[in-house]
Amino acid sequence: MRQWKVAGPAMPEKCEMFDSGIFILYNILRNIIINRLQEGRKVSLSARKVYMTEQNNAKTEEGKIISPVVIKRLPRYYRYLSELLKNDVVRISSKELSRKMNVTASQIRQDLNNFGGFGQQGYGYNVEYLYNEIGKILGLDRTNNVIIIGAGNLGQALANNQEFDSNGFRIIGLFDVNPRLVGMTVRGVEVYDIDSLESFLEDHEVMIAALTLPGSKAMKVANELADLGIKAFWNFAPVDLDLSDDVIVENVHLAESIMTLSYRIHSKS
Amino acid sequence: MRQWKVAGPAMPEKCEMFDSGIFILYNILRNIIINRLQEGRKVSLSARKVYMTEQNNAKTEEGKIISPVVIKRLPRYYRYLSELLKNDVVRISSKELSRKMNVTASQIRQDLNNFGGFGQQGYGYNVEYLYNEIGKILGLDRTNNVIIIGAGNLGQALANNQEFDSNGFRIIGLFDVNPRLVGMTVRGVEVYDIDSLESFLEDHEVMIAALTLPGSKAMKVANELADLGIKAFWNFAPVDLDLSDDVIVENVHLAESIMTLSYRIHSKS
Repeated sequence: MRQWKVAGPAMPEKCEMFDSGIFILYNILRNIIINRLQEGRKVSLSARKVYMTEQNNAKTEEGKIISPVVIKRLPRYYRYLSELLKNDVVRISSKELSRKMNVTASQIRQDLNNFGGFGQQGYGYNVEYLYNEIGKILGLDRTNNVIIIGAGNLGQALANNQEFDSNGFRIIGLFDVNPRLVGMTVRGVEVYDIDSLESFLEDHEVMIAALTLPGSKAMKVANELADLGIKAFWNFAPVDLDLSDDVIVENVHLAESIMTLSYRIHSKS
Repeated sequence: MRQWKVAGPAMPEKCEMFDSGIFILYNILRNIIINRLQEGRKVSLSARKVYMTEQNNAKTEEGKIISPVVIKRLPRYYRYLSELLKNDVVRISSKELSRKMNVTASQIRQDLNNFGGFGQQGYGYNVEYLYNEIGKILGLDRTNNVIIIGAGNLGQALANNQEFDSNGFRIIGLFDVNPRLVGMTVRGVEVYDIDSLESFLEDHEVMIAALTLPGSKAMKVANELADLGIKAFWNFAPVDLDLSDDVIVENVHLAESIMTLSYRIHSKS
């Protein structure tokens, strides 16, 4: 809940009287609300909701609403914990973890408190336990079958990525229209003709479809897949997929990412 | 400045008296601050800064501080405007643009006002002008030379992406340690031995290095490149690069992206 963090000094320097007053009062109220949200017991759920629904939300199993910025940070915690596990680290304090990850210890505590905490005063976190718990929150304790639509370089790169395997994402098929690619295998995974999608989906339970095909074709294919029951898309095509509300889309827009980088380069100079 | 948007009803239903009071007052103050930030004239820059520095900032040429969430949205505007241009649309209202892009018209106006507006009351936006201006803000009016370190599937996928070309990103070389890849060309771009990096950089001006190599090697190569003068990295390796403060890093962490998707799938059910 980063946006609840108190910004530096409450009193802006060289500020007009009226503005300073507003800022101070605003910050005081913000602190009260932060504390109450953190305590979790005094503030009623509906009040929490009013704030939280500002930002496309996610919920925990108990119905608690978690900000998407927190969710985005969980995989990073998970990565650091997996490295600690590899190095046989048994426990870690939020302070040490914060130094490693370059975030504040209070942010770590705040983030994890959303899910019940996992830490113990004076002990810190048990690495393996925390790793497993975050894994469960992210749904990595189950196998998620993935198909990749588009067996070009990008599709093949995804199929070759061993990091996905080790996190329970099992790529079970690539699909393409190009007859030269059909029949090939990438790390043991076959490339099928895209026309066989429907029969493939009858035989296999698929959780996620990754779309690594041109923007011009992505929407049509996504619609067909959604009709066949796919409810989650990992979209690399440079288009916004307009699908029904019960379908989840996670975009990786590479051109937008490099443009953001370019902005940061050129706005600096 | 999404976090300044007023959240739904100011008065939470079924809320304890004390909390409702705080929320109402908080929302009133927030509204005042939003209005003053939007007016831009009454609130002093330092007050604006106090809030804005909460979130790794970017500045316009006039030193105005722009929130990174606004920056992240610019490439998307740029993409929609490029489509409008292709369809020979001359002008568009913020309302029409908002319907197309599925964001509010007020967000569009607010975002663009950060850079001076570009629109005219009653006319809307001139598509070509706005496209060019956003392009300039993103630094796309210049050619940005890019090298790719790692000529595997992902590196080749980036080299094959025509979208980058058309936005001024010119890929001028791929580098790899694998002798079987060295000497190959991808869309006319040669794969060089990674040992020739230093001499290559003496002869070519390179703005961005894309890292599509294993995490275990990324930090070492990034350090070497930074020593050779590279100031911007587009990092696909699953590590956080720890480089000096004047170096810009834009991460594309694919495993984290699919984990976020997984969270959204499993927290729904």
